[in-house]
Formats: sequence, structure tokens, C-alpha cells
Amino acid sequence: MIVKKFLCAPGPTAVPAEILNEMAKPLIHHRTPQFDAIIAENAQLLKQVFKTQNPVVTFTSSGTGAMEASITNFLSKGDKAIVVSAGKFGERFAEIGTAYGVEVIELKAEYGKDVKPAAVAEALKANPGVKAVYSEYSETSTAVAFDIKGIAEVVRKTDAIFVVDAITAAGCMELEMDAWGIDVAVAGSQKSFMIPPGLAFLAASEKARKMMETSNLPKYYFDLAGEIKSNEKNTTSWTPAVTIIIGLNMALKMMVSEGIDNVIKRHYIIAEAIRVGVQAIGLKLFADVPNVRPSDAVTAVRVPDGVEGKKIPDIMQNKYGVTIAGGQGSMAGKIFRLGSLGYMDKTDVIIQLQAMEFTLKDLGFQFESGKSVAAAQKFLLDNIKL
Amino acid sequence: MIVKKFLCAPGPTAVPAEILNEMAKPLIHHRTPQFDAIIAENAQLLKQVFKTQNPVVTFTSSGTGAMEASITNFLSKGDKAIVVSAGKFGERFAEIGTAYGVEVIELKAEYGKDVKPAAVAEALKANPGVKAVYSEYSETSTAVAFDIKGIAEVVRKTDAIFVVDAITAAGCMELEMDAWGIDVAVAGSQKSFMIPPGLAFLAASEKARKMMETSNLPKYYFDLAGEIKSNEKNTTSWTPAVTIIIGLNMALKMMVSEGIDNVIKRHYIIAEAIRVGVQAIGLKLFADVPNVRPSDAVTAVRVPDGVEGKKIPDIMQNKYGVTIAGGQGSMAGKIFRLGSLGYMDKTDVIIQLQAMEFTLKDLGFQFESGKSVAAAQKFLLDNIKL
Repeated sequence: MIVKKFLCAPGPTAVPAEILNEMAKPLIHHRTPQFDAIIAENAQLLKQVFKTQNPVVTFTSSGTGAMEASITNFLSKGDKAIVVSAGKFGERFAEIGTAYGVEVIELKAEYGKDVKPAAVAEALKANPGVKAVYSEYSETSTAVAFDIKGIAEVVRKTDAIFVVDAITAAGCMELEMDAWGIDVAVAGSQKSFMIPPGLAFLAASEKARKMMETSNLPKYYFDLAGEIKSNEKNTTSWTPAVTIIIGLNMALKMMVSEGIDNVIKRHYIIAEAIRVGVQAIGLKLFADVPNVRPSDAVTAVRVPDGVEGKKIPDIMQNKYGVTIAGGQGSMAGKIFRLGSLGYMDKTDVIIQLQAMEFTLKDLGFQFESGKSVAAAQKFLLDNIKL
Repeated sequence: MIVKKFLCAPGPTAVPAEILNEMAKPLIHHRTPQFDAIIAENAQLLKQVFKTQNPVVTFTSSGTGAMEASITNFLSKGDKAIVVSAGKFGERFAEIGTAYGVEVIELKAEYGKDVKPAAVAEALKANPGVKAVYSEYSETSTAVAFDIKGIAEVVRKTDAIFVVDAITAAGCMELEMDAWGIDVAVAGSQKSFMIPPGLAFLAASEKARKMMETSNLPKYYFDLAGEIKSNEKNTTSWTPAVTIIIGLNMALKMMVSEGIDNVIKRHYIIAEAIRVGVQAIGLKLFADVPNVRPSDAVTAVRVPDGVEGKKIPDIMQNKYGVTIAGGQGSMAGKIFRLGSLGYMDKTDVIIQLQAMEFTLKDLGFQFESGKSVAAAQKFLLDNIKL
């Protein structure tokens, strides 16, 4: 039998065929009125995703590049910064800060947990002079969602800026940059934006841009002041990833036409259906924060006892055609992660759960066949207006 | 009448339709054996383009990112570096060095000229302790080619490393990294590689990698040591531009199947035909180095007296469908630049020259119509084995 392939990872995510075709058109030059118009339109459409009036720049890089930019453009050597961290990507903020000579104060929680706004408030009090607080929104490695609105409320009362890694959260979970008082938010193309990896986005508030003026950490490729100036002239500082920017334009129009709030709601329904499905056969979520909804980008599932966890993503992909993600680093073999990010609808819930069921049966896990799919389907029927 | 569009700029260059289609296939995940195999094969094929046994890494960025990496990964704060510069891109090396606290010694020549190996030898003698020499190979802004082989001969006798910006030169002009003793060479995807912008390449010799161990300039996204380690495991440190890396794989196979030396020879014939054509109607080349062949990537032509130079690229593009490049910065209106880079054959010579002739007629320049095309055609007939 043929095995159809489905990409259901928390990034890179599947790209709609019409966007792939748009990007496959003959290349255009990046210093032309035609391309300038795309840059200008993208800048406006990105603001709608971030819910901000602040400039949102686009770097040709992976999301990590924008994370680096969110440190080097605002801080100075020896500045103190609090990094809220309970997973691989929070740790990355700390690593970048350290590499650039920032004094990093890590506010750590166990993987699977979050860090509460009250803890951030305490840390800010205990460490006067902190210039910035860095946090994940959706920590992709654990599928935990941090209380970004709550932390923003704490940080905005201080002189520190609040920097959010929204790489898997932007266009996926509620994100009110201006209303909540987030100063810097970063995101990446291969997530809810439904396009290939290669672009990273960064939005900066006035408070952050003020800090940019005195920042003395070295930067050149990721120089935000230069990029904002270039963007004001509807261009980019360096030769950008032209095809992906063209794909972004089409993707943003699709998102805005669906309605950003509807896009967010769709992500919730897909993710919740997956959560309902996996729990219906006795599996446990890895995200373990009472009364807080996990990330809607990805669902981390604990590998049940007696099952060889590392084999789950391999079998799902190679035997059943469905690419999901395993656990990263120390999490390898302990969790597997089902995606709900980007170009996804109810079908992708069923596709992942059926492949997961086949795989778990192969690995000897005991459960009633079809139960996770049925539970998810029931939830979808109740929650989607078809 | 319809007007067909042709992209003939010195980057981004036209992408073969079969590569565009390859990149338009459904996205695959970057942490899969399938993608690992592509990373591994690209690393080997890139070595053939650079003529090196050294590792060649791929960054998801514009070429400027690799230029930054060629400074931050080898030098330390306060290190002295000589930057050979006679154009916009040489100046960029100096800017990056300065941004990172390197003591930059600029060895400057006028735009249109080059800097001789003897001058580099003198500068090295006058400035003991210089850690690195930076130079363009093909200075895209002026179409001058520097004597990289000669400079390498000078630098290899010292403790300094020799870093070459080969962004428009790799896969276009003779480049013998190991034989000539180049320590670091950088390149970019949207040039001879015939794929969209979004990837940059960096190759580093043992001498350079030794210096990497003590370099204390800050870096994270462009950390070469980490990227080399990732590459050894056939992967990348960060999520790469998956689709462009897939396009690169196909492009590299096309280049190797044509033969790297044949690719270089093709670039010479196309560029020389363009040079013959423009000079046949009395136009002058901007590159002005006696007895040295200009760049084969691009031909910079002086705008003749009485002609409004800034209009040339606009009219060629908007009225005649052929995208070339104007002059950058202070060169705007003084030169226009015809491309010979990447996916180009004899047709692209004729396409550019006929559109240039139409445009110059529109702008009132006096010459015998058809003469540049005829001269180029004669040269091509004599030099291409059809």
C-alpha cells in the first residue's frame, strides 16, 4: 500500500501547496518597486499578527537569530537580565546572554512546569537594576505555555523591558503585544506562518527602542536600528530570502483573511482535540501546570511505562508516514510531541492520532483501538462549526 | 506586445525551473535521515566548488552573515586586521570589524582599481602582529577582480590568516582554496549557485580553525565551532532554510555534472562576450586595472556622457523586461551593471545587450544599432563549442 506523508511537527510545519507554487515562480530582484511593495505590505500584516503598532522587522535567519538580536540590540556589556527558563529554548536565551557578556540571572523551573509572575516579581525585587526579563511563551520542548500576560504586568511596572520568545506562539496563541505591554517579541517563519524556515521576526516597543540607543553589545548582521531604518524605506539591509518573503506575503494574507483571532481559536481546537485524544487512552500530558492550559502549538505526551519511547517518532514517520517530534536532549525517549501548529485542520488531529495508535500497538502498549480517535472526533464535532 | 522577464542581476540570479519545482515539493522535517543525507552530500559537493578539503558550513543567512562569521570566529577584541578595500563590499568587512572592536587597517584603492599583493606585503610589514587579511575576490560594486592568488602567496608566509569574500566569485572564477592557501572563503546561495538568497557558506583552513580556538569575539547564531560539530553529525545547529538547502543539493549536482572548471569557463565566456559587446559601441568598462581581467560575475559599464544613467536599469526592466543592476551608493547613475552570474548561457548575453541598445537609443545615445549584439555574437561563435 502507498503511505502518504504528513508533516505534523511543531516546525517546520506543512506549507499550503498554493504557497509552494507561489514561491516557485521565476525569481524577482529584491531592489525593485515590486519587491518593495511586498516588504511594505508584510510589515503591516505582521503588525496584525503581533497586535502591535510597533515596527516588526524580518531577518533572514532561523528564529535563533532573532533571539540573539533580542539580546544584542537592547543590552550592554555587564547588564543584568532575568531569564525565565523551564526548557531547552529558555536555556538558549541564557546561553546567548552569557556568550555576549550579559549577567544572566536564571529563574528556573523543572521541565514541564512554568515560572509564575509572582516569582518574576520577587526576582526583580531581589536584583535591582535588571535591564530585561526574557521568557518563552510556548516552550516548544515541553509544550508548556507561560503566563506571559501576567509576567508582562509585573515587568511593565519596572524599568526593565520584557522580551518574549513567541516563536511557536505568534499566530497560534493569544498575543496582545501592545495591550499586555510586551516590549520585544520574536517569531519564526516555519511555525504558524505556514512557510519554510529561513525568516525570523522581531517587534520592539518604544521602551525597547529607547534602550536600543544606548546598547553597546556588538552586532552587525542583526543590527535592529539599521533594519528598522531600511524597513522605513520598504527595503532590507541585506539581501533577504526573496522566495520565502513572497511566501510570507501570501501566508499573511491567508491568516488575516481567516482572521487572526480565528487562527488562534483554530489552534486551540486542534490542540485541545489532540489532548483529549491522547488522554482518552490513558496517556499523560508532559505539561504539568495545574489550572493552566498547555501550549496550543504542540502537545508533549509522556511515553507510557514499558514502551520504547525513542521508536515512536521513527515508526510514526517511516511506517505510517506521519512526521511528529520526539523529545529533545534529556527528554529524548521520555516524551513524544504531536503538532497542532500552522496549516492544520481537524484532519490533522485524526491523522496523527491514528498513526500514534498504530505505533503504540506495534510497541506493545495496551489500549482499546480507535478510542483516542473517537474521543478527539467527538470533541471536534462539539467544538467546530462545520 | 508581451514583454518577457529576464533576471540578469549579479544576484539574486535566475533559478532553473527544475530547481524551483524541486523546492516546491511538500516540506520535509530537518531532523530526519532523509535531510541528514542532503546535508552530508551538500558538504561534500561544496568542497568541490571551493577546491578544498576543509569543512564548508552552511548558514541560514545572507552572505553578510558569513562575512560577520569570518570575523567573529577568528579574531579577538583589539586584534589588528588588514582590510583590502576598493568598493562597497570591502568597506563592509571594515564596518563589521569595527562593530566588533577589531582594529581595522584599511588598505584602500579608488573604486574601479584593485590593491596589489605588493601593497599587502608592505602593509603586513608596516603593521606587525596583524592577525588576518580580508579581501574581496570579485568586488560586485565595481566589477573589479582582485589578485587573490597573489595576495594569498603573500599572506601565507605570515602568521595571519587570509579571508576572502568569494560571494560572487565562488563557482564563477577560478578559486583554488587549498592550492592557493586561502584560509577562509565565504559565498552565498543567490550567486553562481543558481538558487534563491537565504544561505551563506564558509570554508575554514586548519590555520584558521586553530585561531578559532582562541578567538574571544562574541558569537552565537554564527558560531562556527558549533556548526562544524553539527555538520560532522550531518545536521545543523539551528533550523535551516530547508527548501533552499534542497535546491542547493540539486544545483550543486548540476554544477558538478557540468564540471566546476567548465562552469568557471562558461562564466568567463559569457562575461567576455558582454565586455566585447558593450565596448563595440564605444562604452567603457568601469573596472580600470591594466592587464587584469575584470570580474566574470558582472560587468560594470560607465554611463556615457549626456545619458541619464539612473534611468538605464529602470527602462531596461520596466520597458524591455531585463533586470540588471545600477550603481550602488556613490556609483548610482555613474555605472550600470550587466550580469553573467549563475544560470546563464549565450542567450543571456544577447538578451541583455539588445535591451541595453534599445534603452540607450531611448536615452539619446548615438551608436550603430545592432553593433554590440553582433560583436558579442561573433565572439561567442569563435569561443563556444556549439
